[in-house]
Amino acid sequence: MKIGYLGPEGTFTHAAVEAIFPHIRNVPYHTIPQCMDAVRDGEVELAVVPLENALEGSVNLTIDYLIHECNLPIVGEIIAPIEQHLLVHPSQLDDWMHVERIYSHSHAIAQCHKFLHRHLKHATYEYVTSTSAAAKYVSEHPEEKIAAIGNRLAAKQYGLAIAKENIHDYDYNHTRFIVLHRERDLLPVTDKEDGFKTTLMVMLPKDQAGALHQVLSAFAWRKLNLTKIESRPAKTGLGNYFFIIDIDQKMDDVLIPGAIAELEALGCTVQILGSYPYYTVKKTSLV
Amino acid sequence: MKIGYLGPEGTFTHAAVEAIFPHIRNVPYHTIPQCMDAVRDGEVELAVVPLENALEGSVNLTIDYLIHECNLPIVGEIIAPIEQHLLVHPSQLDDWMHVERIYSHSHAIAQCHKFLHRHLKHATYEYVTSTSAAAKYVSEHPEEKIAAIGNRLAAKQYGLAIAKENIHDYDYNHTRFIVLHRERDLLPVTDKEDGFKTTLMVMLPKDQAGALHQVLSAFAWRKLNLTKIESRPAKTGLGNYFFIIDIDQKMDDVLIPGAIAELEALGCTVQILGSYPYYTVKKTSLV
Repeated sequence: MKIGYLGPEGTFTHAAVEAIFPHIRNVPYHTIPQCMDAVRDGEVELAVVPLENALEGSVNLTIDYLIHECNLPIVGEIIAPIEQHLLVHPSQLDDWMHVERIYSHSHAIAQCHKFLHRHLKHATYEYVTSTSAAAKYVSEHPEEKIAAIGNRLAAKQYGLAIAKENIHDYDYNHTRFIVLHRERDLLPVTDKEDGFKTTLMVMLPKDQAGALHQVLSAFAWRKLNLTKIESRPAKTGLGNYFFIIDIDQKMDDVLIPGAIAELEALGCTVQILGSYPYYTVKKTSLV
Repeated sequence: MKIGYLGPEGTFTHAAVEAIFPHIRNVPYHTIPQCMDAVRDGEVELAVVPLENALEGSVNLTIDYLIHECNLPIVGEIIAPIEQHLLVHPSQLDDWMHVERIYSHSHAIAQCHKFLHRHLKHATYEYVTSTSAAAKYVSEHPEEKIAAIGNRLAAKQYGLAIAKENIHDYDYNHTRFIVLHRERDLLPVTDKEDGFKTTLMVMLPKDQAGALHQVLSAFAWRKLNLTKIESRPAKTGLGNYFFIIDIDQKMDDVLIPGAIAELEALGCTVQILGSYPYYTVKKTSLV
């Protein structure tokens, strides 16, 4: 069995995969669509891609590609803390406060604003496509006065030293990753899950005032608790949306099917994107 | 009076500003935050920035900066069609089918996928920060076999020829731009508006199942029609959101204040982001 993930090696997606599936071979893919296509085409059995970050919001490309291009069931979710460290070439470890340029993804740089402002105010920023690409660049240029912002796995992967640990501004930053499979199969995870979720896509009937209120009523009177509702453009015109709704329980025989039947009777299109266990990565277990 | 907009010159934001405020001096800004700061700091009286595209969804940076960093009232909205053209240096007009590289914003290239696949399959893509930056690059490199994808204004601004008109895949693509002002003032627009909207930010009370359903009930039983509801992370932890809600009418003395009072009684935090006229740009009026 193989798991594809959004690479390159040393990304937060890679760290999440290693934490939850330590014994399964994993393969990096260059983009989210390539990673999802690899499951559809049978190159790998599972794919792990980011879905939502607590600070930046949803990864629209993941949601849009899942709905419009590559319809794979969600079979699991991984919630992982985002801990950013300042990484330098080992030869520069004692001199980290004099680095002149800092490489990272724009989100990672934004997440460490306070530390950078306080300790490295003179440094300039170079935005690259991922935190691990930044770590790779720093490892390949030991003569330059530069640092990367990234995770512990990237430091290990590219032989960098951690000059300063946990330099992110907010302690509660997490990212949700979804696990996709070609069929609605059980996950090969031995540890106990932290809970279950069911995710639906709901398209409202056209031009009907109050339709979303009716949709939520179908869940509310059944006491089905929604942990998330998010709109995305349906790509059929400005003002046409579909909704992604997360229910905090496993698919059952009565309540969720009853709500779906009611929504369909109201003229909605409903699709079950998955009913799956979720796993929370503890702060220390991120390799 | 001066209007700041998300530049550089020749962007779709620039075209929207020229269509609705033809007689007011306009000033390009490099980023959305810089454009909004310029209004707050009094450099310009108004700012126009993109809020939402029919294909790509919301411009998160605009919403987040407005809520978390720079609280300015919305005083107007411009809805403009997005028409993409293939632009080349005039010396290459007869030879456009042999261009080897195409420059544009990644969204613009994605929006013309079918045309590019059919007519320029051999060409490679170079992603730049805006359609007008692409047009500028093409104008400065007349000897290279390259083209840009952008609007009519960018062609005019940088002296390029339109090799192929309307190469976008979907005819209904529009972008919504908001007009910001330091105070809740009337807009200096003489033409008649196409309608009015009121936009609210609603933060739900913590850990209360069904709270969003209650919020929507407050609007539904008053027959206040919502044209949009969107969630964004509150930046206080995974699963904490605020909602942006658009109501398709002007602020009144009874219904909307009544709904807001009810929401506050439920423990919600409500902020009126603006109550404003909206203007639709016709396809032909985009300079």
